[in-house]
Amino acid sequence: MRTIADYVSGFNGPRVGLRTVLLLIMATVQQVTYLSAQESNRNPNIIVIFTDDMGYGDIGAFGHPTIRTPNLDQMAFEGQRWTNFYVAAPVCTPSRAGLLTGRLPIRSGMCSEKRRVLFPDSKGGLPSTEITMAKMLKSAGYNTAAIGKWHLGHLPEYAPNAHGFDYYYGIPYSNDMDKVEKGNYFELLRNPKIDYFHVPLVRNSEELERPANQHTITKRYTEEAVSFIRSHTDKPFFLYLAHSMPHVPLFASESFEGKSIRGRYGDVIEEIDWSVGEVLSALKESGLDRNTLVVFASDNGPWLTFEEDGGSAGLLKGGKGGTFEGGMRVPGIFWWPGKISPGVVMDMGSTLDLFSTFTSIVGKDLPQDRIYDGYDLSSVLFENGKSPRKEIFYYRDTEIYAVRTGNYKVHFVTQNEYGSQDKTLHTPPLVFDLNHDPSEKYNIANEHKDVIAQASALLEKHKATVKPVINQLER
Amino acid sequence: MRTIADYVSGFNGPRVGLRTVLLLIMATVQQVTYLSAQESNRNPNIIVIFTDDMGYGDIGAFGHPTIRTPNLDQMAFEGQRWTNFYVAAPVCTPSRAGLLTGRLPIRSGMCSEKRRVLFPDSKGGLPSTEITMAKMLKSAGYNTAAIGKWHLGHLPEYAPNAHGFDYYYGIPYSNDMDKVEKGNYFELLRNPKIDYFHVPLVRNSEELERPANQHTITKRYTEEAVSFIRSHTDKPFFLYLAHSMPHVPLFASESFEGKSIRGRYGDVIEEIDWSVGEVLSALKESGLDRNTLVVFASDNGPWLTFEEDGGSAGLLKGGKGGTFEGGMRVPGIFWWPGKISPGVVMDMGSTLDLFSTFTSIVGKDLPQDRIYDGYDLSSVLFENGKSPRKEIFYYRDTEIYAVRTGNYKVHFVTQNEYGSQDKTLHTPPLVFDLNHDPSEKYNIANEHKDVIAQASALLEKHKATVKPVINQLER
Repeated sequence: MRTIADYVSGFNGPRVGLRTVLLLIMATVQQVTYLSAQESNRNPNIIVIFTDDMGYGDIGAFGHPTIRTPNLDQMAFEGQRWTNFYVAAPVCTPSRAGLLTGRLPIRSGMCSEKRRVLFPDSKGGLPSTEITMAKMLKSAGYNTAAIGKWHLGHLPEYAPNAHGFDYYYGIPYSNDMDKVEKGNYFELLRNPKIDYFHVPLVRNSEELERPANQHTITKRYTEEAVSFIRSHTDKPFFLYLAHSMPHVPLFASESFEGKSIRGRYGDVIEEIDWSVGEVLSALKESGLDRNTLVVFASDNGPWLTFEEDGGSAGLLKGGKGGTFEGGMRVPGIFWWPGKISPGVVMDMGSTLDLFSTFTSIVGKDLPQDRIYDGYDLSSVLFENGKSPRKEIFYYRDTEIYAVRTGNYKVHFVTQNEYGSQDKTLHTPPLVFDLNHDPSEKYNIANEHKDVIAQASALLEKHKATVKPVINQLER
Repeated sequence: MRTIADYVSGFNGPRVGLRTVLLLIMATVQQVTYLSAQESNRNPNIIVIFTDDMGYGDIGAFGHPTIRTPNLDQMAFEGQRWTNFYVAAPVCTPSRAGLLTGRLPIRSGMCSEKRRVLFPDSKGGLPSTEITMAKMLKSAGYNTAAIGKWHLGHLPEYAPNAHGFDYYYGIPYSNDMDKVEKGNYFELLRNPKIDYFHVPLVRNSEELERPANQHTITKRYTEEAVSFIRSHTDKPFFLYLAHSMPHVPLFASESFEGKSIRGRYGDVIEEIDWSVGEVLSALKESGLDRNTLVVFASDNGPWLTFEEDGGSAGLLKGGKGGTFEGGMRVPGIFWWPGKISPGVVMDMGSTLDLFSTFTSIVGKDLPQDRIYDGYDLSSVLFENGKSPRKEIFYYRDTEIYAVRTGNYKVHFVTQNEYGSQDKTLHTPPLVFDLNHDPSEKYNIANEHKDVIAQASALLEKHKATVKPVINQLER
């Protein structure tokens, strides 16, 4: 942790003297005043910043050598950097269903083998019987907004406004959909143009623009987010800021285009990093930073298919679409100055846990009429406790390919991330020690038959809790 | 950068008040006193901490998920984290020759294809005609000490004391040498015992212990380093702290054994991290931190051959012994509170540059009678300038396998890291854009014939500067 000594280092060494001492006293007094203003018993604001297809290794604090992310690095250093943080599924729609409901997508019908996500012609979406974290927080008195990508159904009954959000602004599905330009998809992405993708930009139920100008999409999401924060200081708010980027096609605004040495993908991440800085600054300037929990994560791993236009899972194997770590482990950052103890958390967590954690933070109970797949992470966040999460189920669509129990991961099935080919059933399953071998290189199945038995038992026990529901992605 | 506001957050929110303000004032006044004590025109102390076989991805600040390195992370956050920092060679002896002399090992005869490093039966070593940074700094009035692994010749004429170090304490070559135990090397390393490796522990020319108790080696190096710092506050010092770890066989002291969730390799890195913390604390407690430059790096990439007992190059390809990035790009950290602007540096640097940089810092000129392969990095360290280094020559032993020019790397030859097999001459060479594609995945040779021509020209120009010398590794 920085000490006062380091703060002084910001001034020019030789001239440090009475002036510095006075400045520090002033700063301290000012801070104490701020604290008083924020000290209240009201529930904290909650912000979830969710990126699309950003890999585990795509930010500085998680080891990327050529993408510059000072705001995320700072956020990670001031807060908790979770290095074993997972998503509910390795593709977009089911991952988001899991995040917002705290339940595996298999329980809401939001996963499917044939159509892995929702498309513009889909008739389905997140059922109205599901309770999103927005709905839960709204019932606790929160103002709620979703800004960005939705992808849980674009028909009115599935839209954000039907799921507990007072306000919505964004592109309702993936930014590469509604393709109207003829020609090879991969080729078009090399030099993408706005007009190729006829996606709408929507405010609540109103279509604002079509095709959405994706060049300014990150910028406009950010402006919307900042404006929402500034105009909702009277009572607690929940803001779900789900960037459309860095999903291909990649677009950055003029001030970021060509700026990153990592190329177009880097431009896009650096604009998201800027956006994070704007959000945190808005909190500080509104005097809300010490009463706001901010969570940062990605919806799944990098889309490796797109080579340089896709991200990096760092030292992890695999990417989006698959059940190796690179597909489902994402950068996780929790930030709440004065409340979250800064540090690196190596225990397991999941976006599935956010629902339970938020429920606990606002002092409510989980609904008792359904199964939840999350754990309350409060003790890790606020008391340096151990994570209650001890297992991960790696769903590829409707099937579980792998199970993590403690530090061991057991792959029953593996398959190329984005091919229908190469599906391999492993007998015996592959076993990796993820603590010792995070890159899943050294199969230790022969020495760990006990682990296989344990994972198999977990799997069976879990399967028994899964009941058939309507497949929303094939409607 | 942390602000005073964040410092306050260390205290319990609701109780912040007059007591905090007073504490802050006291801390500030104390700091101002310290500053005055350190303010002088004398040259700074210089410390180089050099690890053995630690990979690019093996510390938290460079993305490792299960190795806990709070001291290195803090050092990186307070100082500069260099993400494109290289060593002179992908194996030990030549890498160290390059570091200490600022000259490629081919110029001192410290590389060889047949014997890649020095062995206990070697008769050669770093020639007395070479000028180490210790010798250079000694001539500028420094006290000098080498603590740890030497590996530049163990006969008296090549020892640290003959190369400008006033003091030496350590194991003079690799900790896996002098193997006396029968049996398969790989098997022995799985459950290593001190007695298997009959390596000496030496103080100056005196043998203290044989075999060296490697369990306490990191601890004892650290104690020696701290003691040297504490007893040399009167005039500038240069300390070269070259850990024997994490080279196999891996040993940690009792308080670190079994502590890391990453296993034995993690234990060893976490003890090195502790060691870094001890060194920085000793500087602070001696009031020297604001007048000391500390550089941290590794001698080459991870020794992947040893699987779980070897490290990780993170997102980089390859490891120790080879010329893909994982073999020669290492974590680089520069720390000097109040003098080095904190941040991430993505420009190129090399251990070869340290000689030139230190020479510049102490206000001396480079010797004019020989060729140097380094650049003065001062402007990057102290003025946020651009790095003068624009190229890297990737030597595997006596041959250049690849050349980096700007963001492009051109592989003329590739070969398995530790095999004599699979040497492949590439016509045309492989070309990677290391900024866009740090993992060297996407060959773009076809689109970059100009880059190949440019790299070839650099290669020829460089080769013309290399003159035949005695091969010290085959004597």
